[in-house]
Amino acid sequence: MSGSVRVLDELDAELRAASGLVREVPDFPEPGVLFRDISPVLADGRALAAVVAALGRGHDFDVVAGVEARGFLLGAAVAQAHGTGVIGLRKPGKLPEVAHRVDYQLEYGSASLELPADTLRTGQRVLVVDDVLATGGTLDAACQLVRSAGSEVAAAAVVLELTALGGRDKVRDVALHALLTV
Amino acid sequence: MSGSVRVLDELDAELRAASGLVREVPDFPEPGVLFRDISPVLADGRALAAVVAALGRGHDFDVVAGVEARGFLLGAAVAQAHGTGVIGLRKPGKLPEVAHRVDYQLEYGSASLELPADTLRTGQRVLVVDDVLATGGTLDAACQLVRSAGSEVAAAAVVLELTALGGRDKVRDVALHALLTV
Repeated sequence: MSGSVRVLDELDAELRAASGLVREVPDFPEPGVLFRDISPVLADGRALAAVVAALGRGHDFDVVAGVEARGFLLGAAVAQAHGTGVIGLRKPGKLPEVAHRVDYQLEYGSASLELPADTLRTGQRVLVVDDVLATGGTLDAACQLVRSAGSEVAAAAVVLELTALGGRDKVRDVALHALLTV
Repeated sequence: MSGSVRVLDELDAELRAASGLVREVPDFPEPGVLFRDISPVLADGRALAAVVAALGRGHDFDVVAGVEARGFLLGAAVAQAHGTGVIGLRKPGKLPEVAHRVDYQLEYGSASLELPADTLRTGQRVLVVDDVLATGGTLDAACQLVRSAGSEVAAAAVVLELTALGGRDKVRDVALHALLTV
């Protein structure tokens, strides 16, 4: 067995262990929704290391963009592991100066993401990181935001994809990597 | 010159370069306030690495707690660099299950921080990380939250201390490390 295959096998085993730490919380944020909470995964050093290694694996990028707020935790760790910087894509009203903004529709109502000034440079290849892919609206907005700054989405990486919600269809133009699917 | 001194000198030089990336934004979030924005520091791989190395240096800890939201970016990177997990201390209403909560006073009104369930374990030594120390109310609440879970604040580390606001007095019982002061 080659060294690289062995490393992949080890990483897969670590990821399986990490997935056992995901908590399922019924009826959050509203009745009928089963919320998957990755907080215990992030709090465990070994699980976090496995998740971070898997999120960044196989992608070629200059900088990481994390989606507020859990995507900040994941994105910053991936950036540190790869020696790149990290950019927080923020909800409205948080930034002192906004470079670009994308408004998008949610199932009920609308939302926005903003790119802070003096962060992303034209032509940079960006790894977009978030915790969960649900309907895909937020991830699609994050990718639009990157492109609106003249940069390229190298790939998008999430810990958990909720396949029943079909979010992958919203970001068909992006190389999307989900570590776990339910 | 010994190796360790050389490394410290290099780190100091890197930190000085990183400090040049802090943006000053007048009248944010309100008139008369000069906001220091570290977004460009985080977005630069070399600056982020220097800041992360300095935040974690000299502390002995089992896990990092980052304060929402910019403390998530810094805290997760420090955790990754040290092989520990990271815990996000959150504003109210975000968590599906709350282990502990601390309410505290701000200059106008009140605020709260919450610790997610199944993250911090009794007796763990915690490095509390945030971006800016202003009046100290939030950092003090974060330290209280750690202790309410039966854990120990190993130290608190911030990028920037606004000394005129006297926040250090609020956390006199904590080993507090600020990389830059203004």
